[in-house]
Amino acid sequence: MNNVVNLAEKFAKFSDCWSPKIIGDLNDCYVKAAKFRGEFTWHKHDTEDELIMVVRGSITIQFRDRDVEVSEGEFFIVPKGVEHCPKAEETADVLLLEPKSTLNTGDVINERTVEDLEWI
Amino acid sequence: MNNVVNLAEKFAKFSDCWSPKIIGDLNDCYVKAAKFRGEFTWHKHDTEDELIMVVRGSITIQFRDRDVEVSEGEFFIVPKGVEHCPKAEETADVLLLEPKSTLNTGDVINERTVEDLEWI
Repeated sequence: MNNVVNLAEKFAKFSDCWSPKIIGDLNDCYVKAAKFRGEFTWHKHDTEDELIMVVRGSITIQFRDRDVEVSEGEFFIVPKGVEHCPKAEETADVLLLEPKSTLNTGDVINERTVEDLEWI
Repeated sequence: MNNVVNLAEKFAKFSDCWSPKIIGDLNDCYVKAAKFRGEFTWHKHDTEDELIMVVRGSITIQFRDRDVEVSEGEFFIVPKGVEHCPKAEETADVLLLEPKSTLNTGDVINERTVEDLEWI
């Protein structure tokens, strides 16, 4: 049987940015914890919507036609196929919910791509 | 394009308990906001895992063999097929994540069953 997951405890377990860790597994989805700081990579997920919830701090999700600010206690669902690039001035704790098939850099493979996600 | 969803604003929009409202839609899942107070109905979801995250307050998820306390900033994933019955002494604000096919009372149909979920 599963355990209770405490978000603050999970975020205290790591400090590297842009490297999501798995903290939950339901149906065909993972719940992931990630730290954002600086600017990520422009990418899209062709077949997967992605939920991005800010647990601490605030982030900006850049789209080609606008910026979206997401603060603590808010979430945004990035629709499939839409190019985006998150950034954060200060370190932000972020929860991601997406299908198990989703790669963090979407259609782009670069030094930030994480293929073997770690459970914490 | 989607909008930013502010959890506190969504929870301020309703007061009825045990009646989840849809606040997000991604892939084959809904994100729902619900208020828990008192005791719900024993039920299970035969084919769907269910994520229950507490945004404010605390709840107890009763299982046939143990109780699990889930507090603010924590989540629990109820595995498919497992009978459970949530309860809360004080009103708690709860986020649910589950497939669109999931009925709030699972395999039980009673006066608490909500078939036509409202978007807020």
